[in-house]
Amino acid sequence: MAAFHTIKWFDPGLVSMIDQRQLPHEIVYNEYKDAAAVAGAIKDMVIRGAPAIGAAAAYGLALVPAHDTSGKVETVLAELMRASEILRLARPTAVNLFWAIDRILTRVDAGGFKTVAELREVVLEEAQQMAREDVEINYSLGTHAQSLIPDGAVIFHHCNTGSLAAVDYGTALGAIRIAHETGKQIFVYVDETRPRLQGARLTAWELQQYGVPFKVVADSSSGFYMQTEKVDLCIVGTDRVAANGDVANKIGTYNLAVVAHENGVPFYVAVPKSTIDLGTPTGDEINIEERPPEEVTHVGTWQITPDNTPVGNPAFDVTPAKYITAFITEDGIVYPPYQENLANLFK
Amino acid sequence: MAAFHTIKWFDPGLVSMIDQRQLPHEIVYNEYKDAAAVAGAIKDMVIRGAPAIGAAAAYGLALVPAHDTSGKVETVLAELMRASEILRLARPTAVNLFWAIDRILTRVDAGGFKTVAELREVVLEEAQQMAREDVEINYSLGTHAQSLIPDGAVIFHHCNTGSLAAVDYGTALGAIRIAHETGKQIFVYVDETRPRLQGARLTAWELQQYGVPFKVVADSSSGFYMQTEKVDLCIVGTDRVAANGDVANKIGTYNLAVVAHENGVPFYVAVPKSTIDLGTPTGDEINIEERPPEEVTHVGTWQITPDNTPVGNPAFDVTPAKYITAFITEDGIVYPPYQENLANLFK
Repeated sequence: MAAFHTIKWFDPGLVSMIDQRQLPHEIVYNEYKDAAAVAGAIKDMVIRGAPAIGAAAAYGLALVPAHDTSGKVETVLAELMRASEILRLARPTAVNLFWAIDRILTRVDAGGFKTVAELREVVLEEAQQMAREDVEINYSLGTHAQSLIPDGAVIFHHCNTGSLAAVDYGTALGAIRIAHETGKQIFVYVDETRPRLQGARLTAWELQQYGVPFKVVADSSSGFYMQTEKVDLCIVGTDRVAANGDVANKIGTYNLAVVAHENGVPFYVAVPKSTIDLGTPTGDEINIEERPPEEVTHVGTWQITPDNTPVGNPAFDVTPAKYITAFITEDGIVYPPYQENLANLFK
Repeated sequence: MAAFHTIKWFDPGLVSMIDQRQLPHEIVYNEYKDAAAVAGAIKDMVIRGAPAIGAAAAYGLALVPAHDTSGKVETVLAELMRASEILRLARPTAVNLFWAIDRILTRVDAGGFKTVAELREVVLEEAQQMAREDVEINYSLGTHAQSLIPDGAVIFHHCNTGSLAAVDYGTALGAIRIAHETGKQIFVYVDETRPRLQGARLTAWELQQYGVPFKVVADSSSGFYMQTEKVDLCIVGTDRVAANGDVANKIGTYNLAVVAHENGVPFYVAVPKSTIDLGTPTGDEINIEERPPEEVTHVGTWQITPDNTPVGNPAFDVTPAKYITAFITEDGIVYPPYQENLANLFK
C-alpha cells in the first residue's frame, strides 16, 4: 500500500480523504460525516480521478445510514435516494460516479431490511467491497500492462492516475509503479496538466515517493520529446470509455494522442471495466464539464492573466478510438475492433 | 501606434523597454545604458519575441559609441565587437538577434570613420532605421495576411507575437489587430503558452487594449476547440525559419500544428524576411534553448511542484514544413514548395 491514503472509512461513520488541492505543499486529511459534504469534496476536487470518485460516492452513501437518527428503514431509504441525487450532480463526466451509486442502490433495492442496523451493514459492506475490489482490479490491470512496458521504457504520462486517483495503485500510474516495483528501469515524462496541474503536483509527488525517475514538462512539449528523444509509449487513464472506444479523459489527452499517433508512439488507455460505459454509444454523447475560470486565471494565489480576462476551461476532451493502440483492463489487453472487443469484456 | 512602447531609444544614449516579466501586473519601463545590460535583458526575457530581440540588439550596439569616453574610433570599434559577442550569447534560437548584429557590423565594417561622433551617428541611424523598418514590415505583413482572415474568423493563436514581440504591431498578432482595426468581427483563442505564459499574460493584455474579443485557454485544449467549435485558422510567429520551411517557434507550436493538421484547420506562420534563415538548411540544425527549471516549477511566486522535482524546459520546438499551410511575409503569402519559394523571396 502507498504510505498515504486517498480515501478511507473509519467506524462508526467517518470518511477521511487526503486533500489533493493542498498537495504537494501540505499533507492534510479532511473528514466527512455526511453525503452532501462528500459531494462537495468531489465537486471541489478534494478527491479526483475516476476510480477514487466512485469510491467516494459509495462511502458517501454509507454515511447516510451510519448517521441516521430516525431509526426508520423507510426514512433512511428516502435519505439514500436524496443523497444519491446530490452525489450524481457533483461531476458530470466520470462514469464511475454513476456506476458506484447505482451499484449501492441496486444492493439496497434488493430490499427486505428489517432494521436500520441491517441496512447500515449492507451499504457499508458493499462500499468496503468496492474499495477492496478497486485495489485488486487496479493491481490486476497494472500487472496485465507489464507486457506493454519493456525494460528501459521511456513513458509519457498525462494528469494523475495513481493511488491518488483510486483507492490504491491507480490505473496508468499503477502500471508504471508495478513496472518499477518489479525491477524495470523506466523513465517517466510527467506533463504538468494545466490548468489544475495534477501532473506537476500529484504525479510528481507520487513518483518521488515510489522512487521512479521522472521529469515534469509542459503539456505542450510532448511532441518535442517524441521528435527529439526516445519515447516508447504513452499511458493515460480515462473518466469514461464509450462503446465504440472513444475516450473521455483530462483535457489534453486528445492532443497527446494525436501527437503520439503522428510520431508512431503507442498510446495506451488503462481502464477498469467500471469505467467502460457500453450505454454511451460514442464520445459525442459524453457531457464535458466546463469548470470555473479561476482555475485558468490563477495558479495558487498567483493571478496570471489581466483582470477581467475571459476564459475557456473544459475539464475533459474526447479522444477518438482510432488514436488508441490498446486498452489495458483488469481482464487483459483489448485491441481493435473496439466496438466488438469492449463488449466482449462484459459477456 | 500602441499606447505603450516595447523598446524605444532616448537621446543621447538610453534604451527603454517595458519589463514584460512584470506584465500584466505592473507596467514598468526599464532603462539600459550599456550593451551588456541589454544582453541581460534579452536573456532574462525583459524583452522577447524575434523582431523585438533584433531591435534590442541593434539599440544595444548603438549604446557603445553613445557612451564612449575614449574618443578613439579604434577603441569604439573594438568595444562594438566585444558587445556583439556578448549580445550573440544572450539567446541561441531567434535568428533576428544574429541578423541585427550582423547588419550593424556590416554598416560599421564599411569603415572610413574619422571620429567617434560620426561612428555614433551611423550606428544609431542604422538601429533607428531597423526599428522603423520593423514597424513597416510588420504592418505590410499584417496587411497581406488579411486575404487569409475572413470576416467572422475564429483564430487560434500561440505565445505572444504582438507589439510586445516587435517594435510595433508584431507578426501574427499584428495581422489579428489589423483585421480588427479594419472592421472584421473576429474571435481569438489565446493559448496560455506554458511555461512563461506569454499568451495568458501578454497577448491577453494586448488584445484587451485593442478591444479584440478573445478567451484564454490551456495549451492542451486546442484540439478540444477544433473538434467541438468552429476554428477557422491558426496563426503563429516564429523565431527562425529554415531554408526548407521548417519552423522553430515557442514550445507547443509543433503540437498545435499537428492537431490543426489533423482537424483540417489551416496553419499560417507570420514571418518577416529577417527571420528566414536560408543559411540553416533544415530544422534539425536549429539550436533549441533549454531554459531554467524554475520557469516550470514556479508560477510567479507560487511553487507548483514538490521540492527537488526534475524538469525539462525546452523554450522552442521545430514544426516540420509539411504542417504549414503558408508563410505570411511583408512581400506576400508564400505557399509550398518552400525550399524554392522561400529562396525566391530573396532574389
